[in-house]
Amino acid sequence: MSRVSERFGFCMHSTLSKPFLLFERFKSRRSFSDGFHKANELLPVKKSHVRDNNTKVFLIGAGPGDPNLLTMKAYQVMQTADVALVDWLVNHEIRKLLPRSVEQIFVGKKCGKHAMTQQAICQLMVELAKQGRRVVRLKGGDPAIFARIAEECEVLQAHRIPYLVIPGVTAAAGASAYAGIPLTDRECAQSVRFVTAHLKKGQSINSWPQLQSFIANETLVIYMGLGSLQAITEQLKRIGMPKTTPVAVIDQATLADQQVITGNLGDIARKIASANFEGPSLIIIGEVVNRRNPNFCVSNDMIRGKFPLNQPV
Amino acid sequence: MSRVSERFGFCMHSTLSKPFLLFERFKSRRSFSDGFHKANELLPVKKSHVRDNNTKVFLIGAGPGDPNLLTMKAYQVMQTADVALVDWLVNHEIRKLLPRSVEQIFVGKKCGKHAMTQQAICQLMVELAKQGRRVVRLKGGDPAIFARIAEECEVLQAHRIPYLVIPGVTAAAGASAYAGIPLTDRECAQSVRFVTAHLKKGQSINSWPQLQSFIANETLVIYMGLGSLQAITEQLKRIGMPKTTPVAVIDQATLADQQVITGNLGDIARKIASANFEGPSLIIIGEVVNRRNPNFCVSNDMIRGKFPLNQPV
Repeated sequence: MSRVSERFGFCMHSTLSKPFLLFERFKSRRSFSDGFHKANELLPVKKSHVRDNNTKVFLIGAGPGDPNLLTMKAYQVMQTADVALVDWLVNHEIRKLLPRSVEQIFVGKKCGKHAMTQQAICQLMVELAKQGRRVVRLKGGDPAIFARIAEECEVLQAHRIPYLVIPGVTAAAGASAYAGIPLTDRECAQSVRFVTAHLKKGQSINSWPQLQSFIANETLVIYMGLGSLQAITEQLKRIGMPKTTPVAVIDQATLADQQVITGNLGDIARKIASANFEGPSLIIIGEVVNRRNPNFCVSNDMIRGKFPLNQPV
Repeated sequence: MSRVSERFGFCMHSTLSKPFLLFERFKSRRSFSDGFHKANELLPVKKSHVRDNNTKVFLIGAGPGDPNLLTMKAYQVMQTADVALVDWLVNHEIRKLLPRSVEQIFVGKKCGKHAMTQQAICQLMVELAKQGRRVVRLKGGDPAIFARIAEECEVLQAHRIPYLVIPGVTAAAGASAYAGIPLTDRECAQSVRFVTAHLKKGQSINSWPQLQSFIANETLVIYMGLGSLQAITEQLKRIGMPKTTPVAVIDQATLADQQVITGNLGDIARKIASANFEGPSLIIIGEVVNRRNPNFCVSNDMIRGKFPLNQPV
């Protein structure tokens, strides 16, 4: 095991020896360079620019799940990494896009079970960067939305470690496109609000100002709310939202296993209780759910990238 | 001029003759295939899948500006297009990523000056698809957020035209990453709300429920609000938001000409009045603006894709 895994005591995904690592990296660089020949020609990015600078940590939004929804920039930077710190929400298909030479460290959090504390993640990131290694921090969705970017940036700044944030497609945008539900609509949703149901300690959904101030003509999107669905719907009814307000719950948005269940504030919790949703799930509340074409067909083929047809049937 | 431009009476960007078109397409396909050899090998997308299906219209989120923030999927589908309907907000660098064979039709809207009405855009999209052409509809940011996706999908559904929505990085995520301002923060912003200042006819900012219900511990992001900045800040102060509430205005986010001006509700309108912001601009209001590292240095080199260093200086 490498120095880092010894120090932090968790599993490494790459236990290759150094010379093989170098060979692997050379191989992957070459195919990266071949592979993005066209992209590099067209885009202002030069491979030398990607590699030859002082940036030590890249905080990358890996998008909602479908690996095809990575940005070109994210993909390119991933090819130049030495080590990747990977969150739970990052799909394994995306992890496969890292060159084999890249040491992958899983630092994920799932339903309260943390592989590492936030503090330990920050500490590890700083340590790896100070070793001169090029660190890729892969986060699900977009780093600016419920991904604790502020905490990680602050630590990097404090240690004067050069870093870069690469935005990504947030889960709500992915779920919207793959489930056929727009987030805004001139007729019925002139704003959209993203809220996380992962509350800080001591907070309860009853005192959640985000829910109290929910207004008409707005879409409410709740991240990580599967476990609190019952409490959320109860609270929204209590503050006066009609029971008939449409709700959609989208499980594993943009992935081949995506599932969508729609209902309303009155019945969605019961419907979900009998479904086998595993999460991550996204809850969309508002009139836009009714703008979904009931015939809108998102086939698994489509999600797998074959692009056939959210076609009216 | 081609049939379409005659019919709709506006400028086409490709006036190439048919045989040359075919040759160009062959060339671009080939380099697409070379260029994405690696990507296609790794990702579940096969070139044949991208091309050989019935989908006729692709509604694509082109991201906030930087061409490197296109998703892999968007880029790949763009290479297979016959014709592209392009909004104003789509950067010219992104348009250059379309193969030269693709007929580009500018349908943009800028500050009330519409190249085409929404209705005409929908009509054209349907007409092109019915001609059997593969239509790419390029929209700035993410199609689900203030991009009239619902209206366009509805028309396509009504005509039974198979279509696909490809999500993108929304402007707020891009601006956040490139300006160094997180949108959420466990300490001070547990939700984020996106609002457009492009109001429907007859609406005024004074009666905007989105502004009335603005709460503490939330980030408010206003799209397309540069022209209404004075009115927005006045209204927010009127409903009781402190004059000291931090505000950032980001012009041309993620592009080489990006500019950021920060202030507060009391002084931002005056500051912006003397700046030469051209738009599109994004307004971020809330405590997160204070989480920006004042030394956070986004150089133009970084924005151009050279990735050097939002480094503390």
